[in-house]
Amino acid sequence: MAKSAETEQPVKATGWAARDTSGVLSPFNFSRRHELVGVVSEVGSKVTKFKAGDKVGVGCMVGSCHSCDNCVNDLENYCPKVILTYNGTNYDGTPTYGGYSDIMVVNEHFVVLWPENFPLDAGAPLLCAGITTYSPLKYFGFDKPGIHLGVVGLGGLGHVAVKFAKAFGMKVTVISTSPDKKDEAIKQLGADSFLISRDSHQMEAAIGTMDGIIDTVSAVHPIMPLINLLKTHGKLVMVGAPEKPLELPLFPLLAGGKIVAGSGIGGMKETQEMIDFAAKNNITADIEIIPMDYVNNAMERLVKSDVRYRFVIDIGNTLKAA
Amino acid sequence: MAKSAETEQPVKATGWAARDTSGVLSPFNFSRRHELVGVVSEVGSKVTKFKAGDKVGVGCMVGSCHSCDNCVNDLENYCPKVILTYNGTNYDGTPTYGGYSDIMVVNEHFVVLWPENFPLDAGAPLLCAGITTYSPLKYFGFDKPGIHLGVVGLGGLGHVAVKFAKAFGMKVTVISTSPDKKDEAIKQLGADSFLISRDSHQMEAAIGTMDGIIDTVSAVHPIMPLINLLKTHGKLVMVGAPEKPLELPLFPLLAGGKIVAGSGIGGMKETQEMIDFAAKNNITADIEIIPMDYVNNAMERLVKSDVRYRFVIDIGNTLKAA
Repeated sequence: MAKSAETEQPVKATGWAARDTSGVLSPFNFSRRHELVGVVSEVGSKVTKFKAGDKVGVGCMVGSCHSCDNCVNDLENYCPKVILTYNGTNYDGTPTYGGYSDIMVVNEHFVVLWPENFPLDAGAPLLCAGITTYSPLKYFGFDKPGIHLGVVGLGGLGHVAVKFAKAFGMKVTVISTSPDKKDEAIKQLGADSFLISRDSHQMEAAIGTMDGIIDTVSAVHPIMPLINLLKTHGKLVMVGAPEKPLELPLFPLLAGGKIVAGSGIGGMKETQEMIDFAAKNNITADIEIIPMDYVNNAMERLVKSDVRYRFVIDIGNTLKAA
Repeated sequence: MAKSAETEQPVKATGWAARDTSGVLSPFNFSRRHELVGVVSEVGSKVTKFKAGDKVGVGCMVGSCHSCDNCVNDLENYCPKVILTYNGTNYDGTPTYGGYSDIMVVNEHFVVLWPENFPLDAGAPLLCAGITTYSPLKYFGFDKPGIHLGVVGLGGLGHVAVKFAKAFGMKVTVISTSPDKKDEAIKQLGADSFLISRDSHQMEAAIGTMDGIIDTVSAVHPIMPLINLLKTHGKLVMVGAPEKPLELPLFPLLAGGKIVAGSGIGGMKETQEMIDFAAKNNITADIEIIPMDYVNNAMERLVKSDVRYRFVIDIGNTLKAA
């Protein structure tokens, strides 16, 4: 049996948590060894990377085995024993508690040093959405001028993908079901063009024009029309995770030497590189800052995609012990 | 309307062909400008690559546009206007007639020079099965010692994939539904190991061990168990083309940064390179030579996978004008 967090974890914390499957969050006092962006209050005696007062960030993972091929090659994100920051389980069997709390204790390996003058609030979502899109852009060699990238879905992940791609000098086409996102895509995010995925004429006219596509949609959707947009040897990279399998048509893949790939966040070395690149290029997420006690309203709005594009909870100023 | 082959194509040929959807082949006299392996009898005045008496081969394609990005980059196989050797249509609207005939006329660009002392009969199937497996092994960087490759399906494509992979120095595991193919795979083809895909214990023990997999199966089949065999960033390359879409589970792709790719034959430059490599490394297909009038029996046996592994029709010695 896992021991309770209260008896086994030494640091007392206050947060908000859902206690049952209703998903409603309420104030929660617990003990923890985990935090998402903030300031270092104290470091352990063996910590060398950080000192008290440093601004830091923690992303989607807080632990891994440190010995497998993935860990050795800076791909802790693919370690079979990775410990996720939320809904994860520590090696001692206790749950990880996410970041909706006043303090967090984390192994320095999973902490990112925050760049000077880079905003904590608008930068924080990059620790998930940023690395999730930056990593495949780099891995597949899309980080170059002249490459034509499609970005499917303009939400938390998609809008950051557009910003990174433009910073790399790419030509970017946003592909969306929502015609009303065209102005945002082009005027505010700097995309070069916009395709309505339900408009078969627009989609046909764009057949065979893209080197790569980052698909951020996590609902079940057809990928054949996206595969058709790719040039020979083009790559469709899925970063959303629909719960059910998608339909994979083989002939269009074979007839163009094309690829459907998956990519999940990124390693810690690359996460630091991503944050440094973002700071240098003024890339942040578009956010709406909310107080802790607004979190349940925010969850409801998330389900309706009613946010441009990420909520950030101002825990430091609004979390009060229950 | 397409003009008839008899009136438009200048060279009289004798062959065997199916005239209706029954698929039964019978003797057929026609005019053609097309030949699969054989000896050059005559060259046009502008031909520079070949002379009468040269041994040559023709693969799955006999024409392409020569001007698109694919053609310019030696990827005629992915040209949108590619003309297939059989069941294809020439730019003048006449059908291509395949290679079941006494003579063939082909643009020299689509003709491969046959290496000295390389057998015409056992080498001929490489023009399809050889290039189909060689090309992705090269493209994905699998042509190196130390790489662990899985080969799914031990048929015409699979047995050639094993031979090329072993010539590249790779570690090869054959994955098959048929336990009775184990001896052939290991003792005759030199594979290092053998997995029965229906044996869940064997499959589980091999999870995360392969850098790449060449899947040659053209029937609808589950690919999740194959994706699971891959290491992080592993690549599942489909070279068979099931008629219906396969189920693509996203989570295993995302959790390992994995790829599902398609690959279709290869360009002419690479086809010549493949044949030269095969000759140098004594790689041929395992064949059963049959006379022309056995072709319908052969077709029936093909449906039952009753051939090890390719039929080759000895047209030169057995085709007689009807």
